[in-house]
Amino acid sequence: MALTQVSSNKCAGGFQKVFEHDSTELKCKMKFAVYLPPKAETDKCPVMYWLSGLTCTEQNFITKAGSQLAAAEHGIIVVAPDTSPRMTTHTDLLSQTALPYRGCNIEGEDESWDFGTGASFFVDATQEPWSTNYRMYSYVTEELPRVINANFPTNPDRMSICGHSMGGHGALVCALKNPGKYKAVSAFAPICNPMQCPWGQKAFSGYLGPDRSTWEAYDATVLVASYSGPQLDIFIDQGRDDQFLSSSQLLPDNLIAICSEKKIPVIFRLQPGYDHSYYFICSFMNDHIKHHAKYLNA
Amino acid sequence: MALTQVSSNKCAGGFQKVFEHDSTELKCKMKFAVYLPPKAETDKCPVMYWLSGLTCTEQNFITKAGSQLAAAEHGIIVVAPDTSPRMTTHTDLLSQTALPYRGCNIEGEDESWDFGTGASFFVDATQEPWSTNYRMYSYVTEELPRVINANFPTNPDRMSICGHSMGGHGALVCALKNPGKYKAVSAFAPICNPMQCPWGQKAFSGYLGPDRSTWEAYDATVLVASYSGPQLDIFIDQGRDDQFLSSSQLLPDNLIAICSEKKIPVIFRLQPGYDHSYYFICSFMNDHIKHHAKYLNA
Repeated sequence: MALTQVSSNKCAGGFQKVFEHDSTELKCKMKFAVYLPPKAETDKCPVMYWLSGLTCTEQNFITKAGSQLAAAEHGIIVVAPDTSPRMTTHTDLLSQTALPYRGCNIEGEDESWDFGTGASFFVDATQEPWSTNYRMYSYVTEELPRVINANFPTNPDRMSICGHSMGGHGALVCALKNPGKYKAVSAFAPICNPMQCPWGQKAFSGYLGPDRSTWEAYDATVLVASYSGPQLDIFIDQGRDDQFLSSSQLLPDNLIAICSEKKIPVIFRLQPGYDHSYYFICSFMNDHIKHHAKYLNA
Repeated sequence: MALTQVSSNKCAGGFQKVFEHDSTELKCKMKFAVYLPPKAETDKCPVMYWLSGLTCTEQNFITKAGSQLAAAEHGIIVVAPDTSPRMTTHTDLLSQTALPYRGCNIEGEDESWDFGTGASFFVDATQEPWSTNYRMYSYVTEELPRVINANFPTNPDRMSICGHSMGGHGALVCALKNPGKYKAVSAFAPICNPMQCPWGQKAFSGYLGPDRSTWEAYDATVLVASYSGPQLDIFIDQGRDDQFLSSSQLLPDNLIAICSEKKIPVIFRLQPGYDHSYYFICSFMNDHIKHHAKYLNA
């Protein structure tokens, strides 16, 4: 459970930090970012987990999303893990140079931008050679919250989850598979029905194998159909000019249809002109944090 | 004056765009970013110019500073040029691949991170081999505003300038050398007295030569001493834990002392705990844009 601080920058009255630790779930070193609002100096704070999209590390969100001012205002700790085990670097203390090392050194992990490194899809893989290390679902829902609650001034009963694209899929799946665990869930341009889109089919084939019935455990649209638990107010922003919407990778209509059928409330905002980038995310980040704050600080 | 659009992303209700053009002043292709607030769809808007720090391109500010929401709110166009001529890329239209080409191909331009590429210091160089291309002072104060006013819905009488570190020095110098041209000036952790710091001495020696009297034209502290023009309300934020403050690269005390003597009002905020990074900048960006809006929209 020992954490190594990689960086610490004062931001919006609090601190944006990055830590590295040995993950027992993933059997490799992992980095995560944590924003500590000013309130965390004196009080226990709720935690919002953020899951990033394909190719992202823990850095993209903390440098580009503009989340810190709103997190500071609402007194929320924001945790953003890396999106998979990955090759990373450590600093040689003698020469002060960065040396590469493998997170887990899996053959083929760096061959695709949408599979392997940076593309865990937040599942627990069952197929070789991924099943030993690619256990991001358990990491995000179990190990990481344990690490965060043990090391930071959290209120462990108050957590929520949010994400973008592949991470939006991850956020929805984590919330739907764990009724009551997350007080709120929201997403930017999430992959809503991965079983039916090329990204999801490639990832689930590789991590979960050819039996499509095993894929259902990680498909938000399927999970909504069988959801029974406390009311979830799902909040989704989607750019209308998002290239991955038009190429049928995201399929929000499928999720919304099932939610309507099941009478699960969804706030779905189709934002005209917006694409899939962090320019879209930063435009509406404040709204998402406000949504989470409403439930986390209730 | 023809502009080539490099990118366009909807952001905060407006558009964050990047353009490339052939600069006559710099005799090379240059990129700049421009944020167009929603108001620019129907009205002429004032323009805030942003000058970035050492090593930055036009990208750093637009991805990390969190400026767009406030610029949208106050109806301000924000222009962020690159910080020097530089090697850059163009897209081969046939193969759709990025090809490198030289901005101006000056021997030694890429040898230092604090001189040459990414480190123009916003002066008009007088020394070979820099004097042909490194004319960033004239580019920023003359050519770029002409290009912007000719291509975007600006109110050409309402411009202001802001910057960080080397770009904070640039912003102060541009405002002090052109009384009345800029309605407001502010800076994050500016290099305030470059003649007295290692960064400035290296840059000015290279671009302006050994005669230190020529350096005075680009030193904010010297320029304040002889300033006569409309009242300037200089606004500066400085992190107290900024490593470049403690290593005497920034020297704000020298500027403040002269301002006090000359009764030039300065709002100087020494922000405890903050460093030199964009985490510092994004923490106070809203305050700076509000300051500029007060004068630009008056």
